[in-house]
Amino acid sequence: MEKPVVVKISGRIISPQNIGLVKEYSRILKDHHTRGARIAVVVGGGVTARNYIDAARSLGCSEAVLDIIGIDASRLNARLLIAGLGSNAHPLVPHNLAEFLQYWESGKIVVAGGFQPGQSTNAVAAVIAEAIGADRLVNATLVDGIYDKDPSKHKDARLLEKLGYRELREILQTSQTSLAGAYELFDPVALNVAERSRIKLVFINGWNPENLAKALRGEKVGTLVG
Amino acid sequence: MEKPVVVKISGRIISPQNIGLVKEYSRILKDHHTRGARIAVVVGGGVTARNYIDAARSLGCSEAVLDIIGIDASRLNARLLIAGLGSNAHPLVPHNLAEFLQYWESGKIVVAGGFQPGQSTNAVAAVIAEAIGADRLVNATLVDGIYDKDPSKHKDARLLEKLGYRELREILQTSQTSLAGAYELFDPVALNVAERSRIKLVFINGWNPENLAKALRGEKVGTLVG
Amino acid sequence: MEKPVVVKISGRIISPQNIGLVKEYSRILKDHHTRGARIAVVVGGGVTARNYIDAARSLGCSEAVLDIIGIDASRLNARLLIAGLGSNAHPLVPHNLAEFLQYWESGKIVVAGGFQPGQSTNAVAAVIAEAIGADRLVNATLVDGIYDKDPSKHKDARLLEKLGYRELREILQTSQTSLAGAYELFDPVALNVAERSRIKLVFINGWNPENLAKALRGEKVGTLVG
Amino acid sequence: MEKPVVVKISGRIISPQNIGLVKEYSRILKDHHTRGARIAVVVGGGVTARNYIDAARSLGCSEAVLDIIGIDASRLNARLLIAGLGSNAHPLVPHNLAEFLQYWESGKIVVAGGFQPGQSTNAVAAVIAEAIGADRLVNATLVDGIYDKDPSKHKDARLLEKLGYRELREILQTSQTSLAGAYELFDPVALNVAERSRIKLVFINGWNPENLAKALRGEKVGTLVG
Amino acid sequence: MEKPVVVKISGRIISPQNIGLVKEYSRILKDHHTRGARIAVVVGGGVTARNYIDAARSLGCSEAVLDIIGIDASRLNARLLIAGLGSNAHPLVPHNLAEFLQYWESGKIVVAGGFQPGQSTNAVAAVIAEAIGADRLVNATLVDGIYDKDPSKHKDARLLEKLGYRELREILQTSQTSLAGAYELFDPVALNVAERSRIKLVFINGWNPENLAKALRGEKVGTLVG
Amino acid sequence: MEKPVVVKISGRIISPQNIGLVKEYSRILKDHHTRGARIAVVVGGGVTARNYIDAARSLGCSEAVLDIIGIDASRLNARLLIAGLGSNAHPLVPHNLAEFLQYWESGKIVVAGGFQPGQSTNAVAAVIAEAIGADRLVNATLVDGIYDKDPSKHKDARLLEKLGYRELREILQTSQTSLAGAYELFDPVALNVAERSRIKLVFINGWNPENLAKALRGEKVGTLVG
Repeated sequence: MEKPVVVKISGRIISPQNIGLVKEYSRILKDHHTRGARIAVVVGGGVTARNYIDAARSLGCSEAVLDIIGIDASRLNARLLIAGLGSNAHPLVPHNLAEFLQYWESGKIVVAGGFQPGQSTNAVAAVIAEAIGADRLVNATLVDGIYDKDPSKHKDARLLEKLGYRELREILQTSQTSLAGAYELFDPVALNVAERSRIKLVFINGWNPENLAKALRGEKVGTLVG
Repeated sequence: MEKPVVVKISGRIISPQNIGLVKEYSRILKDHHTRGARIAVVVGGGVTARNYIDAARSLGCSEAVLDIIGIDASRLNARLLIAGLGSNAHPLVPHNLAEFLQYWESGKIVVAGGFQPGQSTNAVAAVIAEAIGADRLVNATLVDGIYDKDPSKHKDARLLEKLGYRELREILQTSQTSLAGAYELFDPVALNVAERSRIKLVFINGWNPENLAKALRGEKVGTLVG
Repeated sequence: MEKPVVVKISGRIISPQNIGLVKEYSRILKDHHTRGARIAVVVGGGVTARNYIDAARSLGCSEAVLDIIGIDASRLNARLLIAGLGSNAHPLVPHNLAEFLQYWESGKIVVAGGFQPGQSTNAVAAVIAEAIGADRLVNATLVDGIYDKDPSKHKDARLLEKLGYRELREILQTSQTSLAGAYELFDPVALNVAERSRIKLVFINGWNPENLAKALRGEKVGTLVG
Repeated sequence: MEKPVVVKISGRIISPQNIGLVKEYSRILKDHHTRGARIAVVVGGGVTARNYIDAARSLGCSEAVLDIIGIDASRLNARLLIAGLGSNAHPLVPHNLAEFLQYWESGKIVVAGGFQPGQSTNAVAAVIAEAIGADRLVNATLVDGIYDKDPSKHKDARLLEKLGYRELREILQTSQTSLAGAYELFDPVALNVAERSRIKLVFINGWNPENLAKALRGEKVGTLVG
Repeated sequence: MEKPVVVKISGRIISPQNIGLVKEYSRILKDHHTRGARIAVVVGGGVTARNYIDAARSLGCSEAVLDIIGIDASRLNARLLIAGLGSNAHPLVPHNLAEFLQYWESGKIVVAGGFQPGQSTNAVAAVIAEAIGADRLVNATLVDGIYDKDPSKHKDARLLEKLGYRELREILQTSQTSLAGAYELFDPVALNVAERSRIKLVFINGWNPENLAKALRGEKVGTLVG
Repeated sequence: MEKPVVVKISGRIISPQNIGLVKEYSRILKDHHTRGARIAVVVGGGVTARNYIDAARSLGCSEAVLDIIGIDASRLNARLLIAGLGSNAHPLVPHNLAEFLQYWESGKIVVAGGFQPGQSTNAVAAVIAEAIGADRLVNATLVDGIYDKDPSKHKDARLLEKLGYRELREILQTSQTSLAGAYELFDPVALNVAERSRIKLVFINGWNPENLAKALRGEKVGTLVG
């Protein structure tokens, strides 16, 4: 039997502002699920998270509580995707790995947001991938994939088609200081988890849902890590 | 000892868009709490709820699930107010009356959003008022109080200073058909709950936080029901 | 595939005092379930609720806590029906819509009591009907259906075979003051929920379980609303 | 500081049928609590449990599920006592020892029913006594205390004022076969727990609430074990 | 359809020290499950429980809390067996009968440790057997079965092939005082539960996993009670 | 008022094998708590975690489930410390930040183990420090503090008394590849959390509990970061 796959989608994409994209993603995921694939999805907090976090920070809230707010926002986005997936999805958003595993028994697509403060939704996706024995984690981001340089600064920046875990770690470490935002592509914890369980990472541009369809079919798209 | 009070605030007011108002409300509630008052707050879903509900409805979601989404959104707003209240508030948002009662034991301000689909946040506020023996429910709305006619249509509409539960019920029944939105001021279930436990209702204009300060001090403001 | 159906049964009927009726209802529901139908059941609190509520009220308990007691009693009645349904039923009584949805995934009959204070078991049934996409809510009550006048006062009261949501609302509003008990047939929240999702309501006399069998087969019985 | 005390009360006594007794018990417990004593209470299932268990058994329910039903009934009775205790009691009924310990932190009287199938409410009381370091468990039963023979058969049966754990064990073992109902006074698990932690047991006639007042004041009443 | 079976395994056997045995047990249980049998497993706390309990007792911990620690240890052992069973097992360890019943709906092997303080893992196994309608409880212990005398003292002690519930009760009562450790074979509560539901008990030597295979096939091994 | 402090203690130290150390730590923490300090403690999984993880890995378990096992083991160690702290500690081990915050309201010492797979106990400690507004996180490790080189390889390795977050990050990044085990001192996520909220880190040798006493009194000991 085919191994399960985990799809991480940016909360900027699965959001009330992009309802057309949510429909497209729902169609593609339902289609893949109907053919017998097992799929887990993790959705980020996006603009809603940003707005609430900025507001709460100005009220003097601790960073840990801001993380909780971001997690709550990611779960709202997860509900949107569940709405789009209809009976193909489990109706509930799991709050931790134990709940995820329980809902996973249903055979349906399970859609999560964040789990705990101090843990990114990328780390959640990686941990879920481990727990269900997935061999691939498709990450639908806001950019085309991983570049060798910051593409916003370097005209000759080149999209990398394939790289190893260690190379990605070096890029992430560099980018922490030099490339604001790139850090959000993935984080060291998520990467360590992926590496320890040899889970392949596929970074795709999430603004085009067709990229997910390609990645699910195993076609070459974006950047492959691992 | 003074009886506890419940404050219901519209989610349009407690929201990331109105962070100045959230600060004002936090200051007033902390001040009142520091003087020894026991306060429970219920916050609505506001614009965030509206946006997510509209999006999910267009995805073919059932109304009950839309209610769940609205409840989740109201809890995000509740977290904002908790952030503003700091150590005066219990850090968690209760998901049902049992959790509320547990957090209430802490002596702190407890801030809730919605509880269950099919139950408005006004009904939640009324049920909480009953459970803690509150004798007043202050409802910070988007209008000055209850009018004898729809003020958007009738120039001579008059703000009512005081009316009975039965009168309010008649107004609500009329407004269901003739006055869109007014129904959201309060609903029959919340009203039945308030009436059966003789809880006085104070409807104030929430855009001016000073109205809450007045209502908490027992000064005349807005419309008194009961 | 046939749409799911929700059956609401009075707690006066599903009770230790009427174990023969519980057996009959179990047989009819198992039979319908075995033919492939998906069924959710909501049971009221009945005499047990009444006894405990009366006792607790005399002890000075708040109305909200009385509601909790009524909910607990309704769950005891739900357990009775689960006992009768055997392996056709999910073994647990859900405490809220999220738990209901989780148990619903099992494919079995799920039997609920009440959910939250301030929410009737009729409202619970209507919300569940929405959430699972039911198109019918069969309400097994203590009377034959909806009458045009109070049958206990008017000899010429006529059982209505069919009426619209609006007509039922008017009858309920009238009955609140003039016809004690009739209000318990259904309440405005439940009605609003049913109307917004176009769920047909079938009111039958629950003292005769055959009426449920007829209603499940789609035969004409009692009063149809919607 | 005085050690906490656990009070076990028969569900036959704390019930809707004996609301006068519930009031008396509430008054005595509130009075003792107000003087600074820490008190946990466990209430049995009584007539409600009996009625529902008999009904469910006739429906073919497993004994384990009957135990669950009995536990649910005991929690209804626990709510009655909580209603009588008002603000002296924690508002919630704990479902297991962890919940009990959490509510116990409030400083209020905590009232439990049963915890798990296969575990009597007497065993629950003994386990709670251990967990909170109580040195006494007062057991308000339907009889005057422990007799040397079955008083319903032997005119010369003598109430025992004091006996050891081992003696009580022998009486319970004998009574299992020869004296129906006596087994319900206490069970081997509860006794083992009491013995291993040297918790004194006081068996009193619960039909007279004054006996509890005496036992709480440390006066001689009923049978003392340990 | 064949009735479900419950297997209780000593925590001395399912432990990190005996990983070979865990593998053997996993193979046998998976094999039986794959042939369509429904199996619940309960695992004891073993050496880990012993070590933590001894340590906590020396710190002045109550016996009830020691029980909680023993339960936690038994759940660690349960996780080991779940790891060995892979996709044949439900991934979560139930904490009470309600959770067990929910996981049991998945059709997979469910592995529990203890449930509540004051309740042995043997009692948990018996209660589960009742709840799922099992007719056999196989108990993989550290000895060959039930003897007529203490085999460590009497050379002529004879392994009993078959005995009744009452005979086992007498042996357990005797052994409480005269035969340390034997009490742990089974306890009165577990026995009462087994007897009231006519569940046959098979005591086997768990150090040889083949004994479980035999017992599951219905072959004669160890001691049969009931 | 003094700010709260978080103490992270290695699971190698708080373990059944080192009961004398557990007593010492309990005495020091109780003493500090009695003087009015607010303290949260996080305990690692130690040898128990190691043993169970190694065993489960050999059974073919996923890394995420191994993390769950490690978390369960850390909670067993947390219970040991709670046993030692007696009534100074909240009796329950929180499973996530929300539960932690609820228990924290009790004013007692709260002792946690791990929270979620993919998140180290150091990260848990850092997140808790943020959430409660702690300005210091004392980390009782197995070594004297942070060295400029690997002390096991370089005789001239020097213990660093004070360094910045960035310096520690560089040391951790280097050590990931060159210095096995050092990574376990702290991890990037925990460090990021500490840095974003300006929480000072104190690394001490946990084998000598006096070091904790010194650190709690604000005396210079081990390595200070931040």
